[in-house]
Amino acid sequence: MFQARTKADTLKELVTVVSILVDEAKFSIDANGISLRAVDPAHVAMVDLKLSKDAFESYTADETDLGVDVSKLDQFLRLAKSGDLVDLYHDEDKRRLNVTVGNTTKKMSLIDTTGMSEPKVPNLSLPAKVTLKIDEMSQGIRASESVSDHIALTATPEYFEIVCEGDTDQVQMKLSKDQLIELEVKDKVRSLFPLEYFSNMMRAIPPQSKLTLRLGNDYPVKLEFEIAGGKGNVTYLLAPRIESGD
Amino acid sequence: MFQARTKADTLKELVTVVSILVDEAKFSIDANGISLRAVDPAHVAMVDLKLSKDAFESYTADETDLGVDVSKLDQFLRLAKSGDLVDLYHDEDKRRLNVTVGNTTKKMSLIDTTGMSEPKVPNLSLPAKVTLKIDEMSQGIRASESVSDHIALTATPEYFEIVCEGDTDQVQMKLSKDQLIELEVKDKVRSLFPLEYFSNMMRAIPPQSKLTLRLGNDYPVKLEFEIAGGKGNVTYLLAPRIESGD
Amino acid sequence: MFQARTKADTLKELVTVVSILVDEAKFSIDANGISLRAVDPAHVAMVDLKLSKDAFESYTADETDLGVDVSKLDQFLRLAKSGDLVDLYHDEDKRRLNVTVGNTTKKMSLIDTTGMSEPKVPNLSLPAKVTLKIDEMSQGIRASESVSDHIALTATPEYFEIVCEGDTDQVQMKLSKDQLIELEVKDKVRSLFPLEYFSNMMRAIPPQSKLTLRLGNDYPVKLEFEIAGGKGNVTYLLAPRIESGD
Repeated sequence: MFQARTKADTLKELVTVVSILVDEAKFSIDANGISLRAVDPAHVAMVDLKLSKDAFESYTADETDLGVDVSKLDQFLRLAKSGDLVDLYHDEDKRRLNVTVGNTTKKMSLIDTTGMSEPKVPNLSLPAKVTLKIDEMSQGIRASESVSDHIALTATPEYFEIVCEGDTDQVQMKLSKDQLIELEVKDKVRSLFPLEYFSNMMRAIPPQSKLTLRLGNDYPVKLEFEIAGGKGNVTYLLAPRIESGD
Repeated sequence: MFQARTKADTLKELVTVVSILVDEAKFSIDANGISLRAVDPAHVAMVDLKLSKDAFESYTADETDLGVDVSKLDQFLRLAKSGDLVDLYHDEDKRRLNVTVGNTTKKMSLIDTTGMSEPKVPNLSLPAKVTLKIDEMSQGIRASESVSDHIALTATPEYFEIVCEGDTDQVQMKLSKDQLIELEVKDKVRSLFPLEYFSNMMRAIPPQSKLTLRLGNDYPVKLEFEIAGGKGNVTYLLAPRIESGD
Repeated sequence: MFQARTKADTLKELVTVVSILVDEAKFSIDANGISLRAVDPAHVAMVDLKLSKDAFESYTADETDLGVDVSKLDQFLRLAKSGDLVDLYHDEDKRRLNVTVGNTTKKMSLIDTTGMSEPKVPNLSLPAKVTLKIDEMSQGIRASESVSDHIALTATPEYFEIVCEGDTDQVQMKLSKDQLIELEVKDKVRSLFPLEYFSNMMRAIPPQSKLTLRLGNDYPVKLEFEIAGGKGNVTYLLAPRIESGD
């Protein structure tokens, strides 16, 4: 069984983080909380999320998997105002997730999870670590959106830099070590990424978050941040775009 | 003759309530105020409205009918800020309604009312009466919008309920007697309605209104509420959608 | 060389004023400030703008012309919040204008100015002068937008009037001498103008501005106003629409 109550804002954070990559996801539920791992249809990005039962006002769960249409859940949660509580209840007989906001309940048919992939987080050696405020990063990403469709992230022992190189224009955001919360880099690393994913992630990560990037050389990037006021944590993994030789 | 001054907000309420059903309407004006009755082009819903002369700062009128393009009036009134006054003047020679906001006057050609229908409010026996806050109702209606195109309203001696049944999902909003302002029901009644009309009505009814529903069994519904701080009242009448037997 | 720092709001005002007429413009820069003159592609309207170096926090410039894509600059400046500072730097080697907001720099390729026209402000005798608050004017223009695509401006020794005559409806905004800041008119003048340009200008002129109109009879109109809190001034010149005789 699964029955839980939480702040609408907490559930909205979870759903927003997931819905930029997939419409449907498998929620793995046990006595400790909810975890979720999903890969976007283009197999470019993965989200790996854990939300502790401490993020809930009340929480009772046996181990179970729920296939949830996160875009429908997202839409329903827009009815909830900040501060509202949301009740979740797994109706096992009818194979539904019942979500209640105020006096309104949406009974959502669960999706069959047998066809859903079980993505594994690849074992990556990402030597550079950069921690910064999400708002700093967002400005550089937003400025890049009109210039090109990919960005280069560079980390050196002295600075972290985003560069977006267009046909005629260039956007550059450079943060020196003292403008960052943390910078742990031995050797300079640089990787190129599709901009669109970064744009969506910037919109999904809660504002004012502390964001940790783990980077390598022509390697995927990990973006790590907290949700639910620290009672949940999320890792995005994004594949690099390999520069062609010409 | 007809010459009147009122708060822009009052006139906006009137126009919003009417414009969700019709683009043009006949305003019946006499010494006591304005009344209006109109049926939407699909003949599914009717609005029946009275606005007392007490809703006006000043009001002088002989009995007359004015055919008004309410969607044009709606558009013009958007120029008015909350607290602005609006002057109305019937220019009989030029067959125009002159509407003034600030220093700007829109002189609107009146529409010939001879072709306009004179809808009669049907004599209906609607045994169940439910009074609630519009905001409670709105949440249930909005949640239903993504699920199906019709809703069932049910009233029993114990509760009032909206149910929207989709192919896979269901939305339910249930308010027990103590969550309602008033509930007068002898025998359970239930009728099905097109959702789109309810959605539009929820947007047109002033927020924080007290809404009274009068219901029967597979029968039309009446929605009664006040406008202009109680100096006007409106009834919407909406035809049921009869469920097919299969 | 050219290097300057200013409030983002100042630069946004300049860019907004220009971008309603052209996408690209030649900024003429010298030790005293920036000036700019441009004609829209339809040759109906001209903007003539001067921004003093006093509008800048710091300003160093030799005489130079910079061809700037103002719509790209407009887009980039949206990243800046009210109160943010913007740095401008002309990179002569790379033929770029570098614009910095916070830690993000957009390096914009300059446009070749050799093909750009050098519009001359025609010598016009516009005998009537009307000064009013932009907000008064805006309301009349906005009300006209749903009625017709041109407006008549009339100035007499007693009043200033906008009239928009549609097929069925008419909008009129009339301000008597005592509702205006200034009215200097010997003989009545009246000219007809394309409404769309006025609509765009109303949106581009900073709110709460004092606007001076200079009018003649079937003649262009000049709109004069300040930007940057008085440290810049702008003149729009708009060609009349000549009424056909029939």
